[in-house]
Amino acid sequence: MLTVTDVQAAAARLHGVVHRTPVLRSRTLDELVGTEVFLKCENFQRAGAFKFRGAYHAASRAPRSNGLLTYSSGNHGQAVALAARELGVPAVVLMPSDAPQSKRAATEGYGAEVVPFDRYTDDRESLGRALAAKRGMTIVPPFDHPDVIAGQGTVALELLDAVDALGMLVVPVGGGGLMAGCAIAAAGARSDIRMIGVEPMAGDDTRRSLAAGRGVTLDVPRTIADGQAAPTPGELTFAINQRLVDGIVVVSDDDLRAAMRFAFERLKVVVEPSGASALAALLSARIDRLPARVGVVVSGGNIDVERFAELCGQSRTFGL
Amino acid sequence: MLTVTDVQAAAARLHGVVHRTPVLRSRTLDELVGTEVFLKCENFQRAGAFKFRGAYHAASRAPRSNGLLTYSSGNHGQAVALAARELGVPAVVLMPSDAPQSKRAATEGYGAEVVPFDRYTDDRESLGRALAAKRGMTIVPPFDHPDVIAGQGTVALELLDAVDALGMLVVPVGGGGLMAGCAIAAAGARSDIRMIGVEPMAGDDTRRSLAAGRGVTLDVPRTIADGQAAPTPGELTFAINQRLVDGIVVVSDDDLRAAMRFAFERLKVVVEPSGASALAALLSARIDRLPARVGVVVSGGNIDVERFAELCGQSRTFGL
Repeated sequence: MLTVTDVQAAAARLHGVVHRTPVLRSRTLDELVGTEVFLKCENFQRAGAFKFRGAYHAASRAPRSNGLLTYSSGNHGQAVALAARELGVPAVVLMPSDAPQSKRAATEGYGAEVVPFDRYTDDRESLGRALAAKRGMTIVPPFDHPDVIAGQGTVALELLDAVDALGMLVVPVGGGGLMAGCAIAAAGARSDIRMIGVEPMAGDDTRRSLAAGRGVTLDVPRTIADGQAAPTPGELTFAINQRLVDGIVVVSDDDLRAAMRFAFERLKVVVEPSGASALAALLSARIDRLPARVGVVVSGGNIDVERFAELCGQSRTFGL
Repeated sequence: MLTVTDVQAAAARLHGVVHRTPVLRSRTLDELVGTEVFLKCENFQRAGAFKFRGAYHAASRAPRSNGLLTYSSGNHGQAVALAARELGVPAVVLMPSDAPQSKRAATEGYGAEVVPFDRYTDDRESLGRALAAKRGMTIVPPFDHPDVIAGQGTVALELLDAVDALGMLVVPVGGGGLMAGCAIAAAGARSDIRMIGVEPMAGDDTRRSLAAGRGVTLDVPRTIADGQAAPTPGELTFAINQRLVDGIVVVSDDDLRAAMRFAFERLKVVVEPSGASALAALLSARIDRLPARVGVVVSGGNIDVERFAELCGQSRTFGL
């Protein structure tokens, strides 16, 4: 069973490789939300999202002489591509054919080979296993692996180290790796931190799975939060989150758009839809009983100017 | 004559009032530019730009019982509005009628009264003097005042404190207050730091004035860099910059657009056109003989999503 010791070991291995990302504050945000908010900005992480932590950590501990392979909606693909470059091995990334062009270009920019698939008809995991077997490559899965989870947990480790007396962590949930890693890190630090996950309304597989007490599979979610479009939780991540997560809230695509605009215009930071989900949950008042100090993970910022403007064009605004 | 002691005194007065803004790094940027670049991010300053430093510093040392008044293309107006709110006095801000709506809304959001004028026909300083006299208010000028200059100099003080061995500072130049303050701070710290100012091509009043050895007045500059559209340098700022600045380079509006897109897509930070000018000078290779470590002031980030997308729509991109 993964414990905070594994997350601490991951932090040691990642030292000097990942950025220790800044924790941003905003008086406007605090006033709007009515409590002190601390934003852990993984959009400033290498390759633009928290994913590089888990990907590098897992890759650095795996046999990899023939290279690394993964399937990903984008950020994990970039992360594996960068990890492979850092480790000096080739990478293959299976990527949905409708993934944002900027994500594909960035993945290729790190030197990886991109193999497209159809998000709505293909089974990316079967495709990945077949290709990996053929080339003798090692698969770095996007979330359901202990080394990936331990790597993602370093986000919470750094945040709890930087900020005292946090009463709650609010964390985006896709496949659940970031949430699981952060929950393990937080539970190891203090048992009384409330762990709240955030999913898009159309992709609330973890919320439904927790309610059902077992993994539930949705139709492929259609949401602007492409990083949170996993139809079902991972087995390992779900087991951890079932034990350690206090609640899941959901946000609408409009909540995400408004949070992205708020981040742009008031915080001056670029956040992609999935990356904005935890901030959106706070701004749209989706969370009850906020403590005096809340930590929020801003998980990624990979989006191009055109797509950002298209999404935020009709968004509502938050003001005082 | 202003010295680094004045800047240090300003820093003491501003402690706890202004943000000590982060210094961002980017491996991609370093590779593109070919040297180590340190970005002092004043777009994360309160009210979204470095202007709050000088405005608060000057306002806090002035008689102000009847309130504060200023004329500004935007950021200084917001800064004075926020400073007045912090100091508990009213504020009037004369603002060009074509200033971005987000700047006007933000200024009013801080509780100031906005009085519009026509940038191309009115003399904002005469209007300002008349209104200030009528209401008994104190004018906080945007750049040509020793307390404003000393306040802006705290940007360089913090940067030089955070980063060792900087060989050059690259600083946006509008009226010249930020440049003058930074040059005083740098000269006090070490005499061998090259100070390079950056102006938009269409608003190169300081470059021309330095070449002429006296203040030159341009036609009202038409550039997307609305924060650098001053037609002539300040008297005080020009005297300081004449003594301490090593060179001025200019950037095109296209250079600014491309730098804004780079900041958005690669750095994940929102920068307004004027705020991107020093970064643009580096990215567009406008500066010769770069040393091993360069400090760059990113001076502001006040721009709304729509205007940003409109400006960056046809920008070129930088890639490796």
